[in-house]
Order: sequence, then C-alpha cells, then structure tokens
Amino acid sequence: MALRNRPVRAVLLDISGVLKNCVDEKDVAIEGSVDAVKRLKSSGVPLRFCTNETTTTRSQLVTRLQAIGFDIKEEEVYPPAPAVCRVLQQRGLRPYLLVHPALKPDFEHVDQTNPSCVVLGDAAHAFSYANVNAAFQTLVAMETPVLISMGQGKYYKEDNKLVLDVGSYKAALEYACGLKAEVVGKPSETFFLSVLDSMGAKPQDTVMVGDDIENDVGGAQKCGMRGVLVRTGKYRPSDEDHPSVTPDLIANNLAEAVDEVLKAFAGASQS
Amino acid sequence: MALRNRPVRAVLLDISGVLKNCVDEKDVAIEGSVDAVKRLKSSGVPLRFCTNETTTTRSQLVTRLQAIGFDIKEEEVYPPAPAVCRVLQQRGLRPYLLVHPALKPDFEHVDQTNPSCVVLGDAAHAFSYANVNAAFQTLVAMETPVLISMGQGKYYKEDNKLVLDVGSYKAALEYACGLKAEVVGKPSETFFLSVLDSMGAKPQDTVMVGDDIENDVGGAQKCGMRGVLVRTGKYRPSDEDHPSVTPDLIANNLAEAVDEVLKAFAGASQS
Repeated sequence: MALRNRPVRAVLLDISGVLKNCVDEKDVAIEGSVDAVKRLKSSGVPLRFCTNETTTTRSQLVTRLQAIGFDIKEEEVYPPAPAVCRVLQQRGLRPYLLVHPALKPDFEHVDQTNPSCVVLGDAAHAFSYANVNAAFQTLVAMETPVLISMGQGKYYKEDNKLVLDVGSYKAALEYACGLKAEVVGKPSETFFLSVLDSMGAKPQDTVMVGDDIENDVGGAQKCGMRGVLVRTGKYRPSDEDHPSVTPDLIANNLAEAVDEVLKAFAGASQS
Repeated sequence: MALRNRPVRAVLLDISGVLKNCVDEKDVAIEGSVDAVKRLKSSGVPLRFCTNETTTTRSQLVTRLQAIGFDIKEEEVYPPAPAVCRVLQQRGLRPYLLVHPALKPDFEHVDQTNPSCVVLGDAAHAFSYANVNAAFQTLVAMETPVLISMGQGKYYKEDNKLVLDVGSYKAALEYACGLKAEVVGKPSETFFLSVLDSMGAKPQDTVMVGDDIENDVGGAQKCGMRGVLVRTGKYRPSDEDHPSVTPDLIANNLAEAVDEVLKAFAGASQS
C-alpha cells in the first residue's frame, strides 16, 4: 500500500480522532499531529479540514484547535452546518433542529418557525427520549417529511469510550417514519466535491485522511480520491478487514500519514 | 372484505390501542371493548391476548386491565418478556437489560452478571442517551454481539401523540453495531405460533385483531392467519394504503371487529 502511484496535489484532513481526541471534555492533540499540520502547510500542498463535527460552531471549533497549538483558520474548515444552511436557503426550508445546544448559533440567522424539515446533528446528551420524540412527531406531522442528517457516522470515541453518533439516530428516525434522510457532510459526494472546489482540486489528485473507515476512507474513494486510514480516534483493528472498503494506506497516526503524503506530493510549483 | 370465507375457530387480540388507550398515564378502555371481550368469551371461541407490551410486568398489566373492567386472566396474556426468559434459559444467555424500569421484575430470576447479550424493550423515558450508549458499549465489547428485541414496532399512541417504540431504537443499535436483532414478540412467527399452540389452534382457523398494520395484521397474515385492522390506537388513515399489507377486514373498533368475527365463528361445539 502506498500513495506514490499517482502524485498528490491536495489534502483533506478529518479533525476528531485525527488531529485530536476529546478526553474529560477537553481537546488533547494526538502526538505528532500539530507538527504534521505544520509540515503540510510548509510544503505548500493545498489543505482543507473536512469534518462532520456538529457539537460546536465552526468558529468555536477553530478557536479550540488553535488553543492546543494547531495552525488553522476558519476558512480552511468545512463542517456540515454551513453547508446545511445553504441547502435550507436554496430550497426555502425551515428546520426543526435536533442538534447539540452548542451548534445552535450556526443556525441563528435561519427562520425556524413552522418547520418544513428536521435537521439532525450529533446532539449527544440532547438525544433524550423527549427530544428524539419531538423530532419524530414533527416529521410525521409533515405531508412529505424531509430529514437532513449532518453525517451518518455510527459512533466516535470520547473519553476512551465509543459513543453513538448521529447516524444511529438517523437510522431510528428513518425506520420510524419510513423515509430516507438526505446526508449533508461526509460521505456525501456533493459535500466532498464542494470542499475540493474551494481549493480548485481534482478528486484524482487528492488524499483524504481520517479515522472513519466508511465515511472518511470509503466516502473519499467513492468520489475518486485516495483514502488513508489512521490507527487513532475511533479506529478498531476490525476496520482493517472491512467487507467493502480497503484504504489506499493505513498509517499509525497523522504524522506517519503526512510522511507518505509528502513523499507523493507533486510539489507546490506543479500544483 | 369479510372474514366469512373461512370459519373462525380461535381469536388473538392485541391490547394497547385495541382494548384500551393510555391517556395521562391512565388506562382508558376504548368504547365497546369491555363488552366485546365479554361477548367473545360468552361465545366460547378460544381467545388469547397477544401483546408486545413491555412497559409493565404481565401481572401488573392484567391487574390494570381488570381495574378498567376487562374479564381477563394472566394465563390468557402473552407478552414478550416471559418468552425472552425462556430463550435466555435455553441458550444460557445473560442479558444486559435496556427496558422499562417497570418491566424489570419479570427478569428478576435471570442471571444478569457479565452480560452475553442485550435485551431491548420499550424503555420509554429510560431511552436516555446514557442508557442507549451503555447498551451499545455492551454490544461492541462482545466478540459476537447478540441483540434480542421485544417487538419491532415503529411507534404507538400515548396521550394522543405518536411516540417512538422499541423498533426505532432497535434500528439505531443495529446500524451502530452492524448487526441484525432477533425479534421476540410480534411479528415473529415463532412467537405467534407458540401462542396458537397454547390453545391448540391452527393459523388458518385464527383471526388476529390489532392496530398495527405491519406487526399485527401483516405478521399474522405471514403466519397464515387472517388479520383485522381496527381504526383505533395508533391507526392512521395511510395504513389503509399500506404498500404490502392488505387487512382481511378493517373495522372501526374492536366492537365492530367482534361482530364480524362472531358471524364467522364456527361455533363452540365444532371447535
């Protein structure tokens, strides 16, 4: 497994489980990751952070990453919420939000009266029985229920435990209402391609690095990118025997992944 | 639509939404249902109550039904919990229970140390984020995860609102763990046939009356019974256009369903 059969001209990085973990509600940089981002930036390779993070606003997320040493700017970070806001505006939809309380400021400017869709994020502790029921009742009251899910992850790692992610509650609501949600965020091709578009990159020139075998690695590969799996974050050994996804590279962590990416980098002058 | 093309020699009745509704945490008999059960019993037709109720013990359920006027005995009622206890015993499984607190006495005699499976019921308010995560973490820690679900209903009616049922949380855990749950309760054929067996009835001679188009009506029909849908409980007009299930009869309520059943009853002497 290597990346060097085709030059790399752009890089997408996942954030949670790749740059940092969350322990006792605090962000902890994964060893070597701060330096790895620095090395990528010094190389001149076009770089974006492509995340399904929905437990905080983009602005807060960037502030927290900067606080633990990452050289990162808000305009480099692509979470689902701003993309959902564009979808809502384009289609004139008014959302009922089943999201983390800390994400709500990203939707402040959006009309939420008389909802015409439900927007689902990783609500974490706000995934109470009462809240999930309220979202369900909003959907069944609609003539044509519309459910927009910010990602479809099964679980992620927090405090050294795996915890349920948005995808599991998406599955519950899809089953209850007999519908299929629209996914905004990874692994949606529309979402990946809009991030590539922001840096003028082509899928065949781009590498995505993540800890989610299906949504990061498999999703990127479906779009024509190469996918690198890191053995950090939610990684489990069984991911290496996934029935349908084979990463282009498996690295112990971001630092090792960046070593390989930089060996394959076509060089700033050619990009 | 009529039942009279084949004689009826046995009857199964669902309980919630057919005999009674739950309003403000109180049971309220549906108009005509107390008398309908009385008429069935007087006719001599073999009768069982086949329910996916898991928010209370069988004994408590029967006490509550008697309190609102139903002539009903514990040995006539078939909920999933006693059937699950038999499965656990037969296979030597120790359950982690994600169930309603009021159901737990039905599992008191079962060894719950060092769990080797998860048993899921309609936990209602106990479907907290913490509890659903604990069940998920128990499953992912198992080498071969086993999930047993007491029914797979999408939703039911409570206080004039539709609320999520066990099937929606089953879907969430199945998605998160990449597994398929085993269902004990309706619409499991094993479950239906064990109830028929208790009264020596054959599927082709039996009618099931329920408010769940898929689990009562569709489930019964898959076993070779006739299925009657009542327009009470969780019934929604769209159930009459269900893509795959067509009831043998649709009745406004249990009283009307029993009128038809008794017209088709082969008579106590022939049963």
